[in-house]
Amino acid sequence: MSVFWTVSRWAMNSTQRHEEVVTGPDELAGRKVALGIESPLRLDCGVELGPFTIAYETYGNLNERKSNVILVCHALTGDQFVTGVNPVTGKDGWWPLMVGSGRPFDTDHYFVICANVLGGCMGTTGPRSHDPNTGKPYGLTFPVITIRDMVRAQAMLLDYLGIEKIFCVSGGSMGGMQVLQWTVTFPDRVHAAIPIGSAAHHTAQNIALHEVGRQAVMGDPDWHNGDYFSHDATPRSGLSVARMAAHISYLSEAAMHRKFGRELQDRETLSYGFGADFQVESYLRHQGEVFVERFDANSYLYLTRAMDYFDLIAEYHGVLANAFQGSPTRFCIISFTGDWLFPTSENRTVVHALNAAAANVSFVEIESDKGHDAFLLDEPEMFETIRGFLRGAEEHWNGTP
Amino acid sequence: MSVFWTVSRWAMNSTQRHEEVVTGPDELAGRKVALGIESPLRLDCGVELGPFTIAYETYGNLNERKSNVILVCHALTGDQFVTGVNPVTGKDGWWPLMVGSGRPFDTDHYFVICANVLGGCMGTTGPRSHDPNTGKPYGLTFPVITIRDMVRAQAMLLDYLGIEKIFCVSGGSMGGMQVLQWTVTFPDRVHAAIPIGSAAHHTAQNIALHEVGRQAVMGDPDWHNGDYFSHDATPRSGLSVARMAAHISYLSEAAMHRKFGRELQDRETLSYGFGADFQVESYLRHQGEVFVERFDANSYLYLTRAMDYFDLIAEYHGVLANAFQGSPTRFCIISFTGDWLFPTSENRTVVHALNAAAANVSFVEIESDKGHDAFLLDEPEMFETIRGFLRGAEEHWNGTP
Repeated sequence: MSVFWTVSRWAMNSTQRHEEVVTGPDELAGRKVALGIESPLRLDCGVELGPFTIAYETYGNLNERKSNVILVCHALTGDQFVTGVNPVTGKDGWWPLMVGSGRPFDTDHYFVICANVLGGCMGTTGPRSHDPNTGKPYGLTFPVITIRDMVRAQAMLLDYLGIEKIFCVSGGSMGGMQVLQWTVTFPDRVHAAIPIGSAAHHTAQNIALHEVGRQAVMGDPDWHNGDYFSHDATPRSGLSVARMAAHISYLSEAAMHRKFGRELQDRETLSYGFGADFQVESYLRHQGEVFVERFDANSYLYLTRAMDYFDLIAEYHGVLANAFQGSPTRFCIISFTGDWLFPTSENRTVVHALNAAAANVSFVEIESDKGHDAFLLDEPEMFETIRGFLRGAEEHWNGTP
Repeated sequence: MSVFWTVSRWAMNSTQRHEEVVTGPDELAGRKVALGIESPLRLDCGVELGPFTIAYETYGNLNERKSNVILVCHALTGDQFVTGVNPVTGKDGWWPLMVGSGRPFDTDHYFVICANVLGGCMGTTGPRSHDPNTGKPYGLTFPVITIRDMVRAQAMLLDYLGIEKIFCVSGGSMGGMQVLQWTVTFPDRVHAAIPIGSAAHHTAQNIALHEVGRQAVMGDPDWHNGDYFSHDATPRSGLSVARMAAHISYLSEAAMHRKFGRELQDRETLSYGFGADFQVESYLRHQGEVFVERFDANSYLYLTRAMDYFDLIAEYHGVLANAFQGSPTRFCIISFTGDWLFPTSENRTVVHALNAAAANVSFVEIESDKGHDAFLLDEPEMFETIRGFLRGAEEHWNGTP
C-alpha cells in the first residue's frame, strides 16, 4: 500500500542537500522534505537516521525577514494538519480555534509551521515508513526516538526553510514537551514559548496509562511483534482499546458527566447484555474505531514511549532550573484546573524552575472542567492570554539578524 | 476441570430445601450451599435462577440470639476469603486489618459472614459454573445480574442460616453498593450499615473505565464470544489489560508517585525498547498476570456490568431520598479525599439523601492520598471511625426478636 510515487526536486542550502518529496495519490497528501541525506540525525538511542522525511504544513506567509514564524508542535495523536480540512481524514484540523485569520496565531500576520513528529504516521518517517535498506516497513526495527529527537528533526526542517530563529513555539501535551525541549536544546533560536498543559517529565501515572495502551496493542495477536504489514493484518482491537483508555484520561469526570451522564444509547431500557447500552460506551467504541483508521499502531508505541522517556529534570540531574539558566526565551505557561493528566502542579514545577533561573515567565492556570483536552477546545481565557503574551513578545522582538 | 465431586446433605427450614455442597480437591475450597431449589431467585432481568450455589465463609461464632452478625460485601475482584489465607490464591485475604480478633470487626465478638457474589468465580454460581440444563459452563448464556440480585441471593443465604436481622452490613466500592442496596431492599433486616468509598450510581467515567476493560476482554480472540472453555483457551491478554487499566484507577497519582516515581526496573539506563523499563510498568504487568490466574474473564464482564447498571437514583425516579424514607438503619458513610473513582462528592450525595429522609447518618471524609484502594489499607482513622460507630450502634441494638 505504501509504494511511493515521488517526484523529487533537489534543493541546496549552505550545508545540506535536501529533497522535496511530492507524493502521489496512493500516499498521504501534503508537503514533505527529505532531510539528513548528507549528515544523518544522530538519535538519543545512538542510531544515525538519514535520509528521513518530514511532512509539514504551513499557514500564512513568511515575511521577508523570516521573523514571523510560529512553530506549532502537535500532541500524541495530532499531525501537521492544524487547521482547514485534513486531507487524510476529511475532518477539520485539530487547532482551528487557535490558528487562522483573526485567531490568536493569526495567519494574516504570522507564518505558522507544523511538522508531523518523527516516529509519526502522517508522512514523516516513522515505523510505518519503508526502511531504505530493506524496502519494507521498519516496524519494530525503527529506532526508539525521544522528544529531543523530534525537536532536532524540526530544527533541521527550519534549517532547510532557512529560518534561523522562531518568534514563538507552542503546543499542548506532548506538543508542550517539545516546546520545553526546544527552549532547552536551542535556546537561542526561540524568542517566545507557550507550552500548554505540559510537564517537565511524565509521571508514574502517565507512564502507567501509556503502558496499558501499549500492552493492549502488543497483546493483540494481529500485532505480530510489530510486523503486521507482512501478515496483511492490523492490531485493530488492541489499538482501539488503547485509544479508549487514553481518551478517558483526556476528559474530566465533569465533562463526561455533562456530555453523557448515564444516558442510554438508542434505547429506553437496559438491555441486560454487553452491547453499548450507555451513550458513553457507544462514544468510546466510536473513538476507538475511527482512531484505528487514521493511526499506525507501532507509531502509537513509539510516541507514547517518547513521552514516557521525557524527563528534563533527570537530564539536569534533578535541578530543572539548570535547564533554563541564561535562557533568553520569554515563557508563557498555561495549565487547566480540570486537567488530571498534566495537572497544574506539574506545570508549576516548570514555572518554579524558570523563576529560579531568573527567566522571563508568565503563568496562567485557567479554570476549566474540560480535562486535558481543554487546550484543543474553546477556552476564551487561553486565547486572550496568548494574544496578550504575543503582543508583549513582539515588543521585545527584533527578528532574525 | 469443573467436574463436581460433591457430598450432599439436605437441610430444611421453614420455607426452603437447601443443599450443602462440599467440594472435592478438584474444586474450590470453602463452604457452599445450594439455594433456590424449590423457589428460584427471580433476577432483575426476568430470568429465574435456581438452583444456584453460594460460596461463603464465616469468621467468629454466631451467638445464641443470632444478634452478632456482620455481613461483609466484597468488591469487584474480591471474594469470600476476607482474612486468613485464601486457599485458592495462597495469599492473605483482602481485609485482614478490618476483620479478626481485636480488629474493628472483632471476631471475638462478632460473627462475620462474607459470600462470593452472584456472578462471581470463587464458588458462587456465575458464568464459569456449569449450567445444569446443558452440563457445560454458562459463558454468555448466564443471565446479566444486578447489585440487587447479588443482595437477594445473600438474603437467601441468611434465610438458610436462620439469621433474620443483621447487626451490621459493610463493604467498600462494589461492596458499598451492595450495602446501600441492602438498606433499600431489606430495610428491616439491617440495623447498621457502613458503605465505604461508594456511590448511589456509577458515573459516566466509571462506566467508561469498565467499558475499556470489557472491550479488552471481548476483543481478545481467545475470548470466543465467552465460550473459551470449549476452545481450551483463556483471554489472558485482554483480561490482563482490563486489570491493568482498572488498577490505575484504584490508585492515586500521589500513591503511584510515592511507590514508583520514575524509577527504573532492574536497569541503570533506558533500554530504548518496549520492555518494562520503569518499575510502574513492571508492577502493572505483574498485576495483570496474577489476576488472570485467579479471575474468570466472563465474571469480570458480568460484575462490571452489574456495577454500571447500579442506579438507586434512577430507581427512585431521581429522588434518592425516597429510597431511604422511614429507614430504621443507622448509617456510617466513609469516603477518602484521594479517591477519584468514587469521590467524596458521590458519597455526599448519599449523605444528603439520607439527611433529607431524616435517616440516622454519620459521614466521615478521611484525608488520604492512597486512592480508591484506601479502604483496603491501613487507615487508622477509618478503623477508629468504625469502632466508634459500632459502639454507638450496639447501644441501640436489641438484637433479633
